[in-house]
Amino acid sequence: MGTTRLETVPEPKYWHLRNVLAEALDTEFAVGEILPNERELAARFGVARATLRQALEQLELEGRLQRRRGVGTTVAPPRVGVDVSTPRHEWPGDDQDASWNPRDCVLAPAPAAVLRLLETAPAEVHTVRRVRVTSGQTVATELIYVPAASVPELSAIDAPSGSARARSVLRELQRLGLDGQDRAVELGSARADDAKELDRLPGAPVLVVTTRYVAAGRVAAVSVATYRADTCRLTFGDSGDLEISDRPEERRAS
Amino acid sequence: MGTTRLETVPEPKYWHLRNVLAEALDTEFAVGEILPNERELAARFGVARATLRQALEQLELEGRLQRRRGVGTTVAPPRVGVDVSTPRHEWPGDDQDASWNPRDCVLAPAPAAVLRLLETAPAEVHTVRRVRVTSGQTVATELIYVPAASVPELSAIDAPSGSARARSVLRELQRLGLDGQDRAVELGSARADDAKELDRLPGAPVLVVTTRYVAAGRVAAVSVATYRADTCRLTFGDSGDLEISDRPEERRAS
Repeated sequence: MGTTRLETVPEPKYWHLRNVLAEALDTEFAVGEILPNERELAARFGVARATLRQALEQLELEGRLQRRRGVGTTVAPPRVGVDVSTPRHEWPGDDQDASWNPRDCVLAPAPAAVLRLLETAPAEVHTVRRVRVTSGQTVATELIYVPAASVPELSAIDAPSGSARARSVLRELQRLGLDGQDRAVELGSARADDAKELDRLPGAPVLVVTTRYVAAGRVAAVSVATYRADTCRLTFGDSGDLEISDRPEERRAS
Repeated sequence: MGTTRLETVPEPKYWHLRNVLAEALDTEFAVGEILPNERELAARFGVARATLRQALEQLELEGRLQRRRGVGTTVAPPRVGVDVSTPRHEWPGDDQDASWNPRDCVLAPAPAAVLRLLETAPAEVHTVRRVRVTSGQTVATELIYVPAASVPELSAIDAPSGSARARSVLRELQRLGLDGQDRAVELGSARADDAKELDRLPGAPVLVVTTRYVAAGRVAAVSVATYRADTCRLTFGDSGDLEISDRPEERRAS
């Protein structure tokens, strides 16, 4: 990684250092390799620890580095592409949906923001919790809010809670003709329970995907999925799989 | 905002403080209102400045707060929904694409990551730069990489660079039958030039949308768009507009 000293430059120091480090990652390090510690790196580049830390945080945000307690900072593997496209008009939990594991289902009041999306104030809402596992890693958690009125036949059936209940609710949803779904992606931060499931600290950056399922002219269910932003790239489109390489910053280099 | 002192809690202190602050933003503050300064807030909640700053950064990441130099910390308006759906099979820059302003076009070697997406190593690549303006705010910048072979008629026409040239390249693209497009969204950080255009600091979190346009069985163009992650929510889907309220964390509250 050399002992390049940073010159005074018009751009912020951490940003210049980020660029120098990114270059070094490309040319001198392999995926999974552990970087020298912060003290050593700061000395090599002749920068303050705070500047170094900012640059490392930057590269972590971009998915280039992973920092884990007890391990140190390692070079991250390319992000995993996760398909979030909507064109197939499918309910969550149908037979092709093997990447998701239902975990639990509770009957609870929905948060106000979900009620606004449901456009009604249903007396009871089933809340299904699922996790999405890709290549052995939990990449997302999801809460699916289903008003009791959307699954009227449910009450007669099986388990009062747990994954069996979650499966029942999703199975009942399939009975409804799905008219369409809308989806939005935005940046968020991991809530404590999601963070734990995703093996991150609370507040870690996540991509929040909110979906509104419309059936018989009304919103029959709302789902809020939380994807790890460090390891996931969300894909959608109409011409098959998109194999996009990692390094969004590199793609924008001119 | 009271003088609530934080109890010792099992979750990280900054996360607990974030929750307390989020609650206060909902109940005691209006959009655009300026928060008390850091010293004052830290004293009120009985926390260290570092903890307070972490909680504020959290809420900024979630789009709840805006911090601007010389102004201070203000309560952010709801995020703006920006449609990034792909179903219409349209080239960038067609007549319905009024939200984008072409800025410039240069003939330059494409970055290695773009060449991988193009699946060829074209001798010359036109790089069109556009910005997307929504409600008077620049929400995104975009680079569209068009191999010279995709627009063979171009050389004979008009301006050598600038926005006229950018328009010509996009106009020539319309001649090709578009077979499909794939899109991926991921978290990135703003490069210095994008940051300037978006009125952010270099390294600010952005949502990077990469699109591959396929025509006549090959990749005819690649675009890399950089959206402000603090103010934008990217929407796509098949049942019309999705009016999702802000507050992704609130939606996930159970």
